[in-house]
Parts: sequence; structure tokens; C-alpha cells
Amino acid sequence: MLAFESSLASAQAEEGLIPQSSAALIASTGAKLEFDVDALVAEAKRSATLVVPFVAELRAAVARSDAGAAKHVHFGATTQDVLDTAMALCLKPCLEEADRSLEGAIRALARRALEHRATPMLGRTLMQPAVAMSAGVKIARWAHALAGDRERLGEAQAVGLAVQCGGPIGTQQGLGGRGLVVRRHVARRLGLADAPSWQAHRNPWIDLLDRIGLVVLTAGKIARDVALLMQPEVGEMRESPPQEGVGASSAMPHKRNPVACAHALAAATRMPGLLATLHASAVSEHERALGGWQAELALVPEIVSALGSSLDFLDTLAASLVVDAARMKANLDAHGAPGTLVPGEEGTMEELLAGLNPYLT
Amino acid sequence: MLAFESSLASAQAEEGLIPQSSAALIASTGAKLEFDVDALVAEAKRSATLVVPFVAELRAAVARSDAGAAKHVHFGATTQDVLDTAMALCLKPCLEEADRSLEGAIRALARRALEHRATPMLGRTLMQPAVAMSAGVKIARWAHALAGDRERLGEAQAVGLAVQCGGPIGTQQGLGGRGLVVRRHVARRLGLADAPSWQAHRNPWIDLLDRIGLVVLTAGKIARDVALLMQPEVGEMRESPPQEGVGASSAMPHKRNPVACAHALAAATRMPGLLATLHASAVSEHERALGGWQAELALVPEIVSALGSSLDFLDTLAASLVVDAARMKANLDAHGAPGTLVPGEEGTMEELLAGLNPYLT
Amino acid sequence: MLAFESSLASAQAEEGLIPQSSAALIASTGAKLEFDVDALVAEAKRSATLVVPFVAELRAAVARSDAGAAKHVHFGATTQDVLDTAMALCLKPCLEEADRSLEGAIRALARRALEHRATPMLGRTLMQPAVAMSAGVKIARWAHALAGDRERLGEAQAVGLAVQCGGPIGTQQGLGGRGLVVRRHVARRLGLADAPSWQAHRNPWIDLLDRIGLVVLTAGKIARDVALLMQPEVGEMRESPPQEGVGASSAMPHKRNPVACAHALAAATRMPGLLATLHASAVSEHERALGGWQAELALVPEIVSALGSSLDFLDTLAASLVVDAARMKANLDAHGAPGTLVPGEEGTMEELLAGLNPYLT
Amino acid sequence: MLAFESSLASAQAEEGLIPQSSAALIASTGAKLEFDVDALVAEAKRSATLVVPFVAELRAAVARSDAGAAKHVHFGATTQDVLDTAMALCLKPCLEEADRSLEGAIRALARRALEHRATPMLGRTLMQPAVAMSAGVKIARWAHALAGDRERLGEAQAVGLAVQCGGPIGTQQGLGGRGLVVRRHVARRLGLADAPSWQAHRNPWIDLLDRIGLVVLTAGKIARDVALLMQPEVGEMRESPPQEGVGASSAMPHKRNPVACAHALAAATRMPGLLATLHASAVSEHERALGGWQAELALVPEIVSALGSSLDFLDTLAASLVVDAARMKANLDAHGAPGTLVPGEEGTMEELLAGLNPYLT
Repeated sequence: MLAFESSLASAQAEEGLIPQSSAALIASTGAKLEFDVDALVAEAKRSATLVVPFVAELRAAVARSDAGAAKHVHFGATTQDVLDTAMALCLKPCLEEADRSLEGAIRALARRALEHRATPMLGRTLMQPAVAMSAGVKIARWAHALAGDRERLGEAQAVGLAVQCGGPIGTQQGLGGRGLVVRRHVARRLGLADAPSWQAHRNPWIDLLDRIGLVVLTAGKIARDVALLMQPEVGEMRESPPQEGVGASSAMPHKRNPVACAHALAAATRMPGLLATLHASAVSEHERALGGWQAELALVPEIVSALGSSLDFLDTLAASLVVDAARMKANLDAHGAPGTLVPGEEGTMEELLAGLNPYLT
Repeated sequence: MLAFESSLASAQAEEGLIPQSSAALIASTGAKLEFDVDALVAEAKRSATLVVPFVAELRAAVARSDAGAAKHVHFGATTQDVLDTAMALCLKPCLEEADRSLEGAIRALARRALEHRATPMLGRTLMQPAVAMSAGVKIARWAHALAGDRERLGEAQAVGLAVQCGGPIGTQQGLGGRGLVVRRHVARRLGLADAPSWQAHRNPWIDLLDRIGLVVLTAGKIARDVALLMQPEVGEMRESPPQEGVGASSAMPHKRNPVACAHALAAATRMPGLLATLHASAVSEHERALGGWQAELALVPEIVSALGSSLDFLDTLAASLVVDAARMKANLDAHGAPGTLVPGEEGTMEELLAGLNPYLT
Repeated sequence: MLAFESSLASAQAEEGLIPQSSAALIASTGAKLEFDVDALVAEAKRSATLVVPFVAELRAAVARSDAGAAKHVHFGATTQDVLDTAMALCLKPCLEEADRSLEGAIRALARRALEHRATPMLGRTLMQPAVAMSAGVKIARWAHALAGDRERLGEAQAVGLAVQCGGPIGTQQGLGGRGLVVRRHVARRLGLADAPSWQAHRNPWIDLLDRIGLVVLTAGKIARDVALLMQPEVGEMRESPPQEGVGASSAMPHKRNPVACAHALAAATRMPGLLATLHASAVSEHERALGGWQAELALVPEIVSALGSSLDFLDTLAASLVVDAARMKANLDAHGAPGTLVPGEEGTMEELLAGLNPYLT
Repeated sequence: MLAFESSLASAQAEEGLIPQSSAALIASTGAKLEFDVDALVAEAKRSATLVVPFVAELRAAVARSDAGAAKHVHFGATTQDVLDTAMALCLKPCLEEADRSLEGAIRALARRALEHRATPMLGRTLMQPAVAMSAGVKIARWAHALAGDRERLGEAQAVGLAVQCGGPIGTQQGLGGRGLVVRRHVARRLGLADAPSWQAHRNPWIDLLDRIGLVVLTAGKIARDVALLMQPEVGEMRESPPQEGVGASSAMPHKRNPVACAHALAAATRMPGLLATLHASAVSEHERALGGWQAELALVPEIVSALGSSLDFLDTLAASLVVDAARMKANLDAHGAPGTLVPGEEGTMEELLAGLNPYLT
């Protein structure tokens, strides 16, 4: 929130809307301001927004140095400018970390797929044995799905991670025709995309969050597979080799629970409801919603937390997935239909690997 | 969580399963134990449950006094026993507060309904004028709906706010046939209902949370009405008289936003997605879920926070709802269909008031 | 819809609001009226309600016999009266069938639980082996959960399956003070509960549909268990013995898919989203919603269809669940922790059976 | 479904996998085959898929001409190949119609925006008056949002509307290395994208449906605005001029309900729950889901029906939106804050129009 206010002031100073000295004071005051968060939150309840007490406090702090400059705090801006931009700024490093995690997981899984391209295992449909496949194809499909998700996420991020800077109703009222230039400056300073005010038409942002959802669903699907294969009666994969303390149970010392899978499956269970709320919030009233947008504020941290659980799972899998080729062979022999024990997948692996080529070099 | 562990130990001591001295030591140690919450959370990630490091720490603290007693910490219990019971214990005072808030709001609204039983206003359907009604009937319906919600919530609470105390798979394994008695003691000590282990069949609990949802939806519906009536072009009601700082805008000093409505509408926007996750979590695997139940842990605080927003709104409404009878009359005259300007609601008000009778004395 | 209109006319005739001859004509005309459903639906689009063309057609048919009586068609009623009552009337036999199905499934499962009270099997948590339990406890828990759901559904049905009969804004405008009596008559004739108009405060109805949801979730949880146990590597249960054509695959002649489980799991997957829409629809505007209530009309048939899939599954399970005690023993020996191979569940089975007592006689 | 089977047979004949005569017979038999749909549906319940009886019937019909050719029906294919491809084929013309509708609506709204670029109206936030804007900016934002949705939908469609053709587990087992070529032929014949088997990793398809959701949400947001402006106390817009029979009420002859808005708002109310189910369905098991994918089959028609309602609304708006500049001026004068009655939106309109340029020529 401070980054937004100081970038805004700098941009406005650059365009001559406020003095350079005010912009400098706003930035330096903000940099050393310490907030009593509990007091801020309590006060925020009265206006249904954190921004009202936040701006009041920043303005008061600036006024202690220069009463004139205080009027330039939050100049031409509104609540949602601060909060939407702050949300985008908070999301940005999460998405950068997600991108690195995804890339690492895809690379690791692609290598494991290659390693197991000739490891036969039972393909299963409707939770019953079907015909033989290779473990390589199964793992390559996971990697391929993640690679598609990563690409889609990147595309949506380039558009949806945008500055919000429109003033009361998104028309940059009061900036004397310099509004678009100011907004462009703010976007550049903050490393966000520049875009028309999106306070009430939020689909590029929603599309970005939807695509975070796709990552979480893929991780959940992979975790479902791994958890099923980790059942000791099946025993074909493990999320990691047994480690002291990992997956421990408070009741049964002998147990090793699939905890990474648990995180990914919990995240995937939560995501449909989180996105449903996001979508419901989008049917807003006029130039700024009553209730819908506010619901979103509670939502985005939950979406990011679900994403984090999914990435933790993928990190674990990338580092330590265990494949038991002997059990795969034994289960295939025991439960495969006669005449279908050899993977008949000519072309399938090549096609997947072609898609994964950037991750295999 | 400590309340569960010390109640469990006491109950087990009462039944001769562990020494009284162990139970006393567990209780006294727990009472003064201070946790490094960040460390606990970090460690919890490895087992996907807070209970593993929590019990380890409690056990270590007890062991510093008496190594033998340490073996009696968490005896016969499991992770979900602690967490489900702790959730129920945390929810209990919230529901008690909700009950008081609801009762107060219903009383206040019932009185306002009586006061306005002869105040004509426009009834509206599909957001268009219909025929005349009294403001009293409109408000009485709100109160009547809340009274029904309160009753349903009370019923569900009596059953759904239950102790969880079943050990590894809910069969009280290892308590030598004293399991049910121990559970009954624990329930009594904690003020919770006694019930068969509900770790994997959770419908009484889900029913309780669903009914919290009904309260939130009713509050949202009332807020929708009030927000529509607060539009200055309509001007028939306000959530409260103008007050310095309440509903302030960071951009427009003249504005007074319907902030209580915003809270209630945001809560009602969130609730369908929260309950959807709750319901999805219920399709669990075997004797304890992988992923589903864990998702619920993130959910219950969100559900309670939404309930809190709704109750705040109802408190505001109870204290300060403004009814503008003159504007009601003017809008009715301007937009009511000829011949339908007099409320024709014989019997309707009486029926609602009969239902509200307990709140009017 | 015809049942509502003719019951309404009869009740109004009984109270002297319209002539007996009109009521008789409305009933007899309706009984033989044939609708061109496609034309009705097409015409309904213009008013966003099926009731407008439906009433127009009924009125025209009555007018062909007696122009005066035509004015008594739909007298004092509105669109939502017809549709909500019709929904309740359609739901009624579905719930009666559900009740019979549930009773049958609970009886059958309770008997199977008794039969297997001494059949040891592996209890499983987080999809990993835990300690021993009896197959009887597992099955008794299913039955116990269903018995609770059945009871809750019955309670909600007694209140929530109510007549809707309130006229334009639910105040029985135009019935000269006879509105409540007329409504009571209509309710009695149709076999529905009598209740204040619930056009905009629908929580008893929502509570009923929520509780249908609980049945579907329990069936989904049972299906999840059965599907996991049907994996040939586990092999402890089957939804039914192999039968020609049941569970056939279009690609693999050897397969027998768990089709009853598929139905129940698909239903349980759908239910959270269906209820989320129901809940979102509840935040209505004024005396009748714009959009919310209309969404519900598409929803209720979907909810009933999901319930039907769940009941089909329970019927199958009741008729043909296969338990393989030998495989249970073998898996327990292979994967149970040493020292926990005997079910330690003293009291658990007795408690469940006590709850199931009405179903065991 | 027949289109898939005959395209598959043709492609296989082209690659020499089956005789040309078989392919020709399958196509000609399919073209004149008449199904007893009720019987098909009843039979489908036993296998939980329509494809089993469908293929049986097609095969029997082919066998009546040539027993040898019957073996080439559905050769190398599986249930989900037929159904996923059929879903994509059914969705294709809907999306083409959506594209035309969207283009028309955007063009019409862009023109209306230009027309009203100097029509002042009240901007509103949190359902309270804010500052002045032009009606042109409001309408241009609607058009701009729809243009973004249309573009996103087009992108997702190019990838997500793909053939499914993978056999039992998506590896084209049994096609002797010709599987990928056959799939490419089938895709080309059917006008669908060619893509690796997506039976268990469905994110391109989900992304496409998510983006249908974005259209529905934008239409819902616009309908929310229009419905609020249609309130007679506000009176600034109407979805269409009054027309005989449109928006008629069964109870109140004087009413004209905003029926197009009702359709769009009902659709937007349904969409979050529909997508939540879609997302929940995605966490599938192994090579083909048990329950999840099957739930999707009930879902896609609902999503398309919601889209249809939204497009109907947009068609109405494009054809007949009424703007009342005088009421806008009067409300602005009455409720705008002093000193903010002139739209201060330099640059905003230009930016929106630049985005809308392709629609204005």
C-alpha cells in the first residue's frame, strides 16, 4: 500500500501535478512509518476498508513535517486503487516463485518420465485395471499438463497483473488530463502491467486467478494418482522415501502418511469453492461493488495459500518421487488382461516429449 | 487443544486408565506451557498436522517433571480427536454470541415492525414496483426469518457441537472397554455433546455449519434490501443515521457508504463457496480422509468470520435502522399502480407477529 | 401447476370468494387440457416465466365454456405461487421414494454389519493402513450415517415442503382477509405444509435441499470406500457380484466397472456446486428476486437427479454388496502394524447398533 | 457420436487399418440409424455410459449388412473418445453463435457509447452517488469488457475444442503406430483441434469453459447495472422500450419486468456453482476418472444454457437499450456532490474507444 502511494506521488510529481518535495516526503515518511496493525484493522471496520485509516495515518505523519504536502497524499486516488494494486504487488512474487517451482517440477518429472519410458505398469480407468502403459507416459502426462498450466499462467499474468489507478470511479477525475500518463508511470515503477481501470470489470484479473486454479487442480490430480499408488496393497510409487518425522502420526508410530499429497489434495478441494466466490463477486454494481469486491479481499490470500500447498507438493515430488518398477510389473502380471501386458503406446511418448522439449535440455 | 488433552487425562484417571498424578501433571503443565507458534506451524508441515509437534512439546514438558507421566499424554488419542474437539470448543462461544446477537436483533426488529405496521410503502418484485405493503410486514419478515434461523441453529448445535474422542480409527482402541465412558466424561467436562466418533461421517457437524450459512444468507438478503432502499433516489431506509467517520470514503469526503451492508453482503457472497468446500470435503476415504478433512481446518475460521460480519450488520440494524415514512409514501404515490396504494395484507402481519411473540414480551 | 390452480379455486369457492361452478369448471378444464409444451416454453421466454402463458391457456380454455369463470382462474395468485408449489409437489414423491430407499438400504446394511461384526479388516487413515477394525463397524457406520441423514431429512421435509400461496407480494392481497384460510385449504388439499409466504425468505426450503445434499454426500463417501476396496489389489469388497452387461466397457471386454459407485460419486461431485448456487440465489431483492429465484428453477431438478443417482447406488449396495473376508484377513496380516491385528473396538459396535435398533427388528 | 464413429472409421480406412468398405458401411448405416433414445438411456445406466448401448446398436445395424465390418465399428476407441468428442462437436456451433452475438452486441454498444459520450450521469460506488461520468464511458466499459471476453474465448477455443481419440487409456493402443495420424485425420474431418489425449488432464477444456464463464459474468454485471438503472425511482435506462407481452406479470397487468436482465442474472448466479463442479471434477483418478468426468457430462449442457441466456440478454440490449439522458441529468443534479457534476474523464473514453476500434468501423 505504501509502494502504491509513493509511486503515485512520484508519478504525479513527474507530471507536475504535485511538487517533487511532496513526493519525496511521502516516500521517505512512508518508508519509516510503523503501523499499529490492530488499531488499523479495528478502525477499518467503520469504513469497511483498511485504506481510510491507512491514508489518515500516512497523511498525519506527512503533516507532521509539512502540512502542505499532506494534501498530496493519496491525491486523486481511491480505496480500491490502493488495495487492488497492493494485491497485485503481493501476488507478483508469489507468481514468480510459482513459475520457478513449476519449471523445476516439470524438469524433474520430464527426466523421470524419460528414465521410465520402458517401465511397464497397469493403466487404470474407473479405478479398475485397463491395459498396460509405461510409467514414463504417466509421468510425462503430469509434466505436460503442468507445462501447459505454466504457459497459460504466464500469459494471464502478463495481462492480469495490472496497476489499478483510476480515482473515485476509474476515470482519473481531477488529474487534469494527465491521468493516463500518471498511471503508466506508476505501473512501470511497480513492475505491473498498465491497463484501463478494472475496478468493476475484472475479468483479466479473474482469468489470472482461474489459471492459478488450474495449477492447483493439476497438482491435486497428480496427488490423487500418487496417493492411490502409495496404498501398500498397490505400492507402485511413494511421494518420497521414508524419512524420520515426515508423515508421522500422533497415534501410530509405524505410520508414514502421504503428507505432501494431503497438502495438494486439500488445496484442490478448496480451490473450486474459492473460485466460485471469486466468480460470484464479479457481478458488481455500477462503478464499484457493494460486497462483491470486498469478499475478494478475503479470497486472494486463500487462493495463494492453496497454490503454495500445491507447489510444496510439486517440490517434494520433483525431489523425491519413488517409483517401484518391480511392484508395477507384479501388479500388471496379476491384474492386466491377457494379451495387453505390453504398453501399446507408439507415438504417445514422443508427442509428450516433444511438448516437454524445452524442459529436457 | 490443551483443554482436550487435560480433560482426556482427567477422564482416564477417573476410570483408572492412568494415574491421577499423571492427569494432574498434564493439566498443570499445560496450563503454564508457552508455545512458539511459528515453530509449531513450521514443524506441523512435516506431518500435515499441528497435533504432532503440539503433543511432542506437551509430552516433553511433562517429561521434565515425570518421565512416566509423559507416556500418559494424548493416551489413546489421535490428531483428529484434538483438532475436531478444539474446533468445536472454539466454535462454541461464537455460537453463544451469535445467539445473543440474533436474539437482540430479532427483538429490535420485531419492535420496529410493530411501530411501522401502518406505514405504507411500495412492495417490489423483480426490482420493479408491485403493490403496497406496510414497512411493518417487510421488517417483520426479516425478524421472522432470523427467528427461524436461530431456532434451526440451536437445534443443530445441540447435536453437532460434539466431542471427538475415538483414537486412531474412532474405535477407542486401547482403552480396554472404557472408551465410551471416558468420552462421556470428556464431553461433560468440555461442555460438548457426546456422540459416536464422527471423524469420517461428519453430517451433524456439516448440518451445523450449513445452518450458520442460513443466518448469513438471511443477513445478506436483509442487507440487499437495505442497500437498495438506501439509494438516495429511493431513500426509504438507512442502516444508521450519518455518523462522523462511519462509511467514510478515502476519495470523496461527502460520501457515507453502507458499510454494515457491505460487510453482510461480502459475507453472503463468500458463504456459498465456503459451504461448497465443506461439502466437497465430506466425501472422505475410509476411516480418516486424505485432503478433505484437512481442507476443513482452513474453512471453519472463514465461516465464523463471515458469521461475525453478518452479526455486526444485524447489531447495527438493531441499534440504528432509519425508516423514512415520508419517502415511502412519496415513492408509493409516484410508482404504485392505481388502486393498489393501500396495503392489502389482512392476516399477514398477525401471522408474523404470532411467530415473533417470544421476542415481543 | 394445474393441481395448484384447481386447489386454489376450490379453496376460494369454499370460502365464498368465487362461485363453486367456477371452481368446478377450472378443475375439469385443467384435467383435460393438453399443452403444447414447446410453444409454452417459447412463449415463456418473453415473460421469463412459464406461468404467464400457462395461465393464459388455462384461462382461454375455461373461457370457451364460461367467460365469467375465466376471471376466477389464478385469482389472487402470482407466478411464484404456482411454480414454488409445483416444485414442492414434484419433490414430494421423490422424497417419499427416497425415504423408502433409505430405509431399505439402512436395514440391509445394518444386517450386513451384524453379520460381519467379527470379520477383521484393516482400518485405514490418510489412505494408509492404521489398525484393525471389524468390517461390521465399517458397515454399521455407513448405516448409522444414513439413518441420521434420513431423520434430518424427515424433519426438514415436515417444515420445508410447504405451499406457496401469497399473491403479488406474499400478503394475499385482494382476498379480503380470507387469504390465510384459503392457503390452509390449499395446503391440506395438496398434502403440503401450511406456512407464511416464503417467496423471498426461503430458508426452510433451502434447509430441506441442504439435507438432501447430506444424503448425497454420505452415499458419495460410502461409494468412495467401496471403490477403493474394489481395486483388485485390495479386493475386499465389490458393489455387486459380476453380472453380464453391468459395468461393461466399450473398449475392454474383460472390465467390470464400479458403475453404481460412479453414479454416487458423480452425484456427490455435483452436489456442492448445486447447493452453492442455491445459496447464492437466496440473497434476493425485496419481495421477489430478480435472477436468484429464477436460477433455482433450473437447480431443483438437478438436485433431485443427483439424489436419484445416490439412491440407485444405495439400492445396489443393499441388494448385492460383496464382502471378501479372506482378502480382508490377508491384507490385515500383510499391512497391519504388529500388535494391532485384533479389532479393539469394545463398545463401538454396541453403540452403533443401538442407534440402528429400529432397523434391525 | 455418429460423426465421431464414421470419421474414425474413415480415418482408419485411409491409413489401411480397416477396409474402405467397412468405413463406408459404418458411415451410411449411421446416417440412417434411428435410436430409441429412452431405451438407450435406460440401458446406459447399467454401464454408466451411453456409449456402450450406442456402439452395440450401431454394430448390430452394420452387422445386418456385413458381419465382418461390424468388428470395425468403434475400432480402437473407448467411451470417453466418443463422448468428449461429441461434447466438443456440440459446443462448437454454440461458440460460433456466441461469437456472432458478442460481436453484434459489442458493435451496438460501442456505437451507443459514442452517441452518449457527452451525456452526463451519476457515477455510483458502493450503491451510493460518487462523481459524474458520461453514459458513454459506462457503456464503453461494458463493450470493452465483452471485447476482452470474446478475445479470450477465441484463444481458448482454438486450443480447447479438441478431438478426443486415444482408446482405452489414451495411448492409441492397438492402432499399430498409426494412432497419431488417425487422430489428426479425425480432427480435420470434424473441424476440431488435434491434441494429445486429454481424458484425464483436461485443463485446456476447463480453461475454455472457464472463459465461457467470464462472458456470463460480464453479462450478469451489465444486467445488474441495467436492472438498478431501470428502477423507476432511478429511471436512467431500460433494457428495451415497453412492448406488449414482454415482461408481463401473471398477477399485475401494469408491470413490465426486466426479463432480459432476469435471464442474465439467473445465468450469472448459476455459473459459479457450475464451474465449481467442473473444477472439482478435474481431480481425477489415474487414466480415466470414476465419478468426476461423469459429473461433467451433466454440466456442460447447463453451462451452455447459461451462456445462451446471457447472449439473449446481450442481443436484447444491442437491439433496444433505452437511455434517458434527462433522468440522468436530473439525478446527477439532485444527488451529485457539489463541484463534481461534470465528468472529469479526459483520456478514459479515448482509451476505451481505442480498444473498441475494430468494432467501430
